[in-house]
Amino acid sequence: MDDKICINVGGTVFRAKMSTLRKYPNTLLGSISFESDCYVNEDKSFYFDRNPELFNTILDFYRNGCIHLPNHLCGLLWETELKFWKIPLTEISECCYKTVSSYKKRVNISNMLRAVFFTRNQSECTSTSVLGKCCHRLWLFLDEPSSSIWARVFSFVYLSIVLISASLPCLITHPGIRIEHTNTDAFLKKAEYINLKFWMNKDNPKEMHLATSEQPIWLYRTNLAVNVFFSVETVFRFLTCPFRKRFLKEWLNILDIYLFVIMWIRYGVIQNYRNDLITNIRLAYFLCFCEAVSVLRLFRFFRLAKQYSSLRILFITIKDSVKELLLLLITFIVFGWMFANLIYYTEIREPESFPNMLVGFWWSVVTMTTVGYGDVYPVGPLGRVVGVLCSLCGLLVLAMPIAIIASNFDNLCRQNEEREAYANVQMSHKSNTSKTACNTSSINPANK
Amino acid sequence: MDDKICINVGGTVFRAKMSTLRKYPNTLLGSISFESDCYVNEDKSFYFDRNPELFNTILDFYRNGCIHLPNHLCGLLWETELKFWKIPLTEISECCYKTVSSYKKRVNISNMLRAVFFTRNQSECTSTSVLGKCCHRLWLFLDEPSSSIWARVFSFVYLSIVLISASLPCLITHPGIRIEHTNTDAFLKKAEYINLKFWMNKDNPKEMHLATSEQPIWLYRTNLAVNVFFSVETVFRFLTCPFRKRFLKEWLNILDIYLFVIMWIRYGVIQNYRNDLITNIRLAYFLCFCEAVSVLRLFRFFRLAKQYSSLRILFITIKDSVKELLLLLITFIVFGWMFANLIYYTEIREPESFPNMLVGFWWSVVTMTTVGYGDVYPVGPLGRVVGVLCSLCGLLVLAMPIAIIASNFDNLCRQNEEREAYANVQMSHKSNTSKTACNTSSINPANK
Amino acid sequence: MDDKICINVGGTVFRAKMSTLRKYPNTLLGSISFESDCYVNEDKSFYFDRNPELFNTILDFYRNGCIHLPNHLCGLLWETELKFWKIPLTEISECCYKTVSSYKKRVNISNMLRAVFFTRNQSECTSTSVLGKCCHRLWLFLDEPSSSIWARVFSFVYLSIVLISASLPCLITHPGIRIEHTNTDAFLKKAEYINLKFWMNKDNPKEMHLATSEQPIWLYRTNLAVNVFFSVETVFRFLTCPFRKRFLKEWLNILDIYLFVIMWIRYGVIQNYRNDLITNIRLAYFLCFCEAVSVLRLFRFFRLAKQYSSLRILFITIKDSVKELLLLLITFIVFGWMFANLIYYTEIREPESFPNMLVGFWWSVVTMTTVGYGDVYPVGPLGRVVGVLCSLCGLLVLAMPIAIIASNFDNLCRQNEEREAYANVQMSHKSNTSKTACNTSSINPANK
Amino acid sequence: MDDKICINVGGTVFRAKMSTLRKYPNTLLGSISFESDCYVNEDKSFYFDRNPELFNTILDFYRNGCIHLPNHLCGLLWETELKFWKIPLTEISECCYKTVSSYKKRVNISNMLRAVFFTRNQSECTSTSVLGKCCHRLWLFLDEPSSSIWARVFSFVYLSIVLISASLPCLITHPGIRIEHTNTDAFLKKAEYINLKFWMNKDNPKEMHLATSEQPIWLYRTNLAVNVFFSVETVFRFLTCPFRKRFLKEWLNILDIYLFVIMWIRYGVIQNYRNDLITNIRLAYFLCFCEAVSVLRLFRFFRLAKQYSSLRILFITIKDSVKELLLLLITFIVFGWMFANLIYYTEIREPESFPNMLVGFWWSVVTMTTVGYGDVYPVGPLGRVVGVLCSLCGLLVLAMPIAIIASNFDNLCRQNEEREAYANVQMSHKSNTSKTACNTSSINPANK
Repeated sequence: MDDKICINVGGTVFRAKMSTLRKYPNTLLGSISFESDCYVNEDKSFYFDRNPELFNTILDFYRNGCIHLPNHLCGLLWETELKFWKIPLTEISECCYKTVSSYKKRVNISNMLRAVFFTRNQSECTSTSVLGKCCHRLWLFLDEPSSSIWARVFSFVYLSIVLISASLPCLITHPGIRIEHTNTDAFLKKAEYINLKFWMNKDNPKEMHLATSEQPIWLYRTNLAVNVFFSVETVFRFLTCPFRKRFLKEWLNILDIYLFVIMWIRYGVIQNYRNDLITNIRLAYFLCFCEAVSVLRLFRFFRLAKQYSSLRILFITIKDSVKELLLLLITFIVFGWMFANLIYYTEIREPESFPNMLVGFWWSVVTMTTVGYGDVYPVGPLGRVVGVLCSLCGLLVLAMPIAIIASNFDNLCRQNEEREAYANVQMSHKSNTSKTACNTSSINPANK
Repeated sequence: MDDKICINVGGTVFRAKMSTLRKYPNTLLGSISFESDCYVNEDKSFYFDRNPELFNTILDFYRNGCIHLPNHLCGLLWETELKFWKIPLTEISECCYKTVSSYKKRVNISNMLRAVFFTRNQSECTSTSVLGKCCHRLWLFLDEPSSSIWARVFSFVYLSIVLISASLPCLITHPGIRIEHTNTDAFLKKAEYINLKFWMNKDNPKEMHLATSEQPIWLYRTNLAVNVFFSVETVFRFLTCPFRKRFLKEWLNILDIYLFVIMWIRYGVIQNYRNDLITNIRLAYFLCFCEAVSVLRLFRFFRLAKQYSSLRILFITIKDSVKELLLLLITFIVFGWMFANLIYYTEIREPESFPNMLVGFWWSVVTMTTVGYGDVYPVGPLGRVVGVLCSLCGLLVLAMPIAIIASNFDNLCRQNEEREAYANVQMSHKSNTSKTACNTSSINPANK
Repeated sequence: MDDKICINVGGTVFRAKMSTLRKYPNTLLGSISFESDCYVNEDKSFYFDRNPELFNTILDFYRNGCIHLPNHLCGLLWETELKFWKIPLTEISECCYKTVSSYKKRVNISNMLRAVFFTRNQSECTSTSVLGKCCHRLWLFLDEPSSSIWARVFSFVYLSIVLISASLPCLITHPGIRIEHTNTDAFLKKAEYINLKFWMNKDNPKEMHLATSEQPIWLYRTNLAVNVFFSVETVFRFLTCPFRKRFLKEWLNILDIYLFVIMWIRYGVIQNYRNDLITNIRLAYFLCFCEAVSVLRLFRFFRLAKQYSSLRILFITIKDSVKELLLLLITFIVFGWMFANLIYYTEIREPESFPNMLVGFWWSVVTMTTVGYGDVYPVGPLGRVVGVLCSLCGLLVLAMPIAIIASNFDNLCRQNEEREAYANVQMSHKSNTSKTACNTSSINPANK
Repeated sequence: MDDKICINVGGTVFRAKMSTLRKYPNTLLGSISFESDCYVNEDKSFYFDRNPELFNTILDFYRNGCIHLPNHLCGLLWETELKFWKIPLTEISECCYKTVSSYKKRVNISNMLRAVFFTRNQSECTSTSVLGKCCHRLWLFLDEPSSSIWARVFSFVYLSIVLISASLPCLITHPGIRIEHTNTDAFLKKAEYINLKFWMNKDNPKEMHLATSEQPIWLYRTNLAVNVFFSVETVFRFLTCPFRKRFLKEWLNILDIYLFVIMWIRYGVIQNYRNDLITNIRLAYFLCFCEAVSVLRLFRFFRLAKQYSSLRILFITIKDSVKELLLLLITFIVFGWMFANLIYYTEIREPESFPNMLVGFWWSVVTMTTVGYGDVYPVGPLGRVVGVLCSLCGLLVLAMPIAIIASNFDNLCRQNEEREAYANVQMSHKSNTSKTACNTSSINPANK
């Protein structure tokens, strides 16, 4: 029995050669001696209070020189185990490192999800003054629909006002709603007088109609009311918010502030320069630009995401898939531009199609996404071959990154479901044990 | 050997420190003493008749303070095991709770599938009267195609009548089949006389043709016959159904009753007010509305689903994926409306395209789904950039929820296959054992 | 130690209560007694030469009453094990039956793949006569490209002739290649004379061109040569085939015979009734029909599949996914027809769009597949809402079955890769051992 | 205890019958005898210093005659184990061979990825001369952006010049930028004089504009500068490259050389024959051809891939999925051509659509990819049925290979993520241990 030693791990006896263990003298097993604490004289064996199932893998490390982790056990367990036996994580062989790395990734996602879905409801009011309490209540009312029944009602009111505000630009510009204030001929004469021609196209019915008509007074008032509502709401939410630094980091709040600023600048300009609007080109352009950038007001709708986890996960996925989106864009643009070049040269003898390469790019994009409006398309046989290649190439180039993004979304959704299931179990256990308090206290570690 | 104790679990000996076990005094192992029943004096060990393989995980809980479940074993096994050792489920660490939660989810789906595919064939006739038996037979004949050969034939007849009823609206309105009863000019004069102009467009050939022609008599009779067939079938099925409450909960039956009511109201109106139809606008509108809502008659086709499991699973998937569908709709509408705003403002200088924002919304929807009719499309360079973004955005926004719905469908199909495989094995075992009855009786627990 | 007994399974000692085992008296363990062979008096235990790892699960069946299989072990192993312990497969709990059923499914697919990819190369020539050997060689030459270098060359020749035969219909009907034999006016006069008007549209340039021109003589001869080649090839392949019954079951051969028959009937008709072709309508129709059904000649290209496994797996997938394809078609048609109804009624006031419901069906199909030609599209606001619903519905209804078919294809491909990997290993082992024959013979079971 | 023997594997005792082991006399266990080294007289058992967990599977081979590998353990472990027990890999049963083959595949991919992402930064300068060192530095500067801050800056400059070079063809041919040098009428007269008519279409505005205008001088100079830059860069990179053979194998370098040659030939021709360009048709064609094949210059953009792993993996995926791409193309073309035949014959009576079969092929391709421009579409009812089948068939035929390619990409991305995670751990371990050097040295095998 020369150099064979017995190791008793949690009751199971293992036999190994001392020479094998001595290969890695810096690890726990490599440095054991018969004088150490864990040597039990009675049994002539070393005793360790560890899991014998996992010890096989540990011992295999000394036998074969590398660690292959069984993948049915959690990575955290292995981390603990390897730490105990003083074996560095880097000794895990590459083919089996997946067990640890996928576990770590899961934990990261899990922590991230927990941080995102942290309900602020539990954050207690820390202020003791009357004003402080009022502030806190008002803030909960405005920002946390789950806090009370009134907050819930308010969130519905908020959403419906968002809907109204979203439909307003459509109503304001709709030809069926606007009221004509000047005759077209009269306007044209006036326009000629003040030299408007160069920036206005009198053959464009849309522009002419917008110039000769105005929104009805009830629309103007609704618009103003909606804007005042959002302004007041934003101001109050900012003032009552207990943690203003964090407030300024959330993009929905930044959006609110941004819209607040844009809006009042616009109103100020309209009120002050009402009469100069038709003659002053810069002002008109500026107002039009303001209107266009206000389109982001629709994103207020995503405040709904607070109560609707799927929507939030969709945004997290998009944020986390920046790498794939970039890949999508780069390959899309490079291949699109290449086909634009090709189609221009192959269709150069066709009189009607592809007057320049930019039109070719528009065509290749429309083809690669398989939208295919049919406003431009190749006519010659060679051009059609390019068209076929372009659509197949588009399918391939788009399918790959989108499949990854979709699978990321799937992963996040599944893991969020698990998180919710776990949270529910813990919650229900808590409420049970709070009733039978004597029981719980004894479950918790006694020697704490 | 101070505080080390031996635990014999199903033959395998484990050794643990008493102090470790005492950490959780409220669990079975935490509260064992040398006086308890399970202590065997001869071996100086505690004996438990449990699975030693699972005990490693249980013991690790005392050592490390958390439970990491090996994922190659069924969640139900762990539930039983943890219950035996009096350890609450909440002590499972979050990273490994997946084993239990995914098992529970599988069981839920399995139960749901079993309930859905419960064949009513086995429900015996409980009535003893002659009328009761007849009722039961008639009901089986009408509702359960697998009950007899005649029921099978009837289901084919039923399906072909559904097909006829589906093709009738097409035939009735088809210009090639309708018979002209009045000259167009004569009709126009008459229409002018009774002042029909304001709700009829005489430049619309479709409307004019419908007004000046009528369906041939054979079509009218076929339509009536089909409707009578469905009415009689619905009435008899309802009368003979053994469990009428459940009958009224199934949506296919509700549909039948709904169509029954709509149909006869329509016929009543037509019979009573035949001559007023052309002059009375409200009646004409009402009949047209009745016709449009009768389109649901096509869903009768899904009665086929009873014998065709894939179709039923498709509906279950859609019902279970309400969350994802909602997500799809919300993101789709928000992004669609945003691009409608953007395209309107960027294309405002182009005379022909996008007269108002609603057209822009139609365009953005058609682009995001990559349908791309080509009736509206951006013309200016900036509008085309918006178009590219819109189509890419649509691909992303649609791919994510649809991927989840498709994967849900895949899961349900796979699990249903397994359910069927298991049911087949059980069935074949039953039929085997019913032949060799002596054998079976002894397989069943003897001490029951 | 009252009723506790020791069971030694392959060296590991298990302890169980006799009363527990007696629960299922018909199984091996339930019926053991101290008189049986497996009782070893020395050790006072029952000895079984089985795998102790699996025995835990067996023992758990007696303890808990149901079997939960660890899913990291192969289903076949469990079948063997349960058979040894005389426990029926039906005692496996439903949640864990997946291990067995998925294993069985894999084995089925594996067998199917092996049958499909069985190379007939190894089938030895059984005939001893000279003629028989010639036949066999000829057959290998014609049907098995991997049999010799000449067979390989022949298969390339065959493929190129398939390519020529595929391009012939295009050349024959192409206006740029056909030679005009009569003047249009002359033809029209002649046609009027023989009263052709009623089945020919003189405003259709395609029909007129086909009637007034003929294919050049070189095309006619090429066509004839190609047809003769295929006829001879088919006849020889059939005559030399060693197993003619199986020959008639393969669809590619049926196709060959079908094309053979069609072709010669067509030639016969043309030769006999050459002069009647223009005047005899029925003959012309018959020839046109022959031409149209000959389109299947393109499938000869799939003879390539013999050497190209992916293509064959694609066809197997389509054959195995009949259920999903049916589902696809049914839901597609039902929803398509429903939207056809809806769009007809909602667009009834628009003069230009959707003259009848069949056009509506064409539109809904084109929209649901997101092709979107743009020849018909809704114009009114309500019709556009229907359009949006239709395209979203189409995406959903198509995504689900197609995802399953794609995943079936993926599964088959992966499993085929594994099959190939295994076959390669076995093959390389064989060639190794045939060299070192002494070694191999001893690996094989000695007691055979 | 007749022929039962004890085998002590790493401490755990197994008992097996000698007759069972003798079945395979050529394996290690089949040939053991009581005289061999591993027999320990004291314990009356054979001792092996191996993993007892894996030994169950080994022993099952003797019992059942086939090996079923538990799939939770790494394939490499099993290879080592089977080698030790002298059991050939071919004895693994087919159903469980997956464990080994999937492991091998993973290792192959892993090696391939490591080779691809091998950073050449570490390749030390081997030359000792001053010139050699300069060369090496220059090469790192040109080819390895991560080598220094200046190399990084240069790579950005390079990319922006690629962008400029990509936009040049668009600017050169854009009608808004070119300057007219001759009047159209004058040019037409001149062209008539030198007999250009037969290769130029005077009704084609694009051709006419290109012929009567020239690029502005600044564009000409930019183009020249860009080309000189790339030429110089290519030459220097080639001259300084330490391993020129490998240089000539990388496709990006081949592209550079190819573009270099094309470019200077073109310039040479233009400089020498400037005046003959309009009259000499061949020269004009040759230059046009040169321009078209220079479109590949866009691929220089993929030099970016060096620092951007996703892009590189996308190319690896496409290279590895050649089989699937071929499958895609073959099925696509065969089905497309089949539908081209069908649509031509079914639409033969419609005057406007499908003048020949090539147009039919264009239509079927556009339909199968669901692009649907709407330039050609079926009009008759039968043609529309063919259209529906074509689009559904296209969805199926495309979905299957693309799903596989997308899943290949997904696999490669996941595995690359793991590779990066492992590399990071190893890297951080190295940097840690280089600080605490005394520790590390002892972790490494002592007996090396």
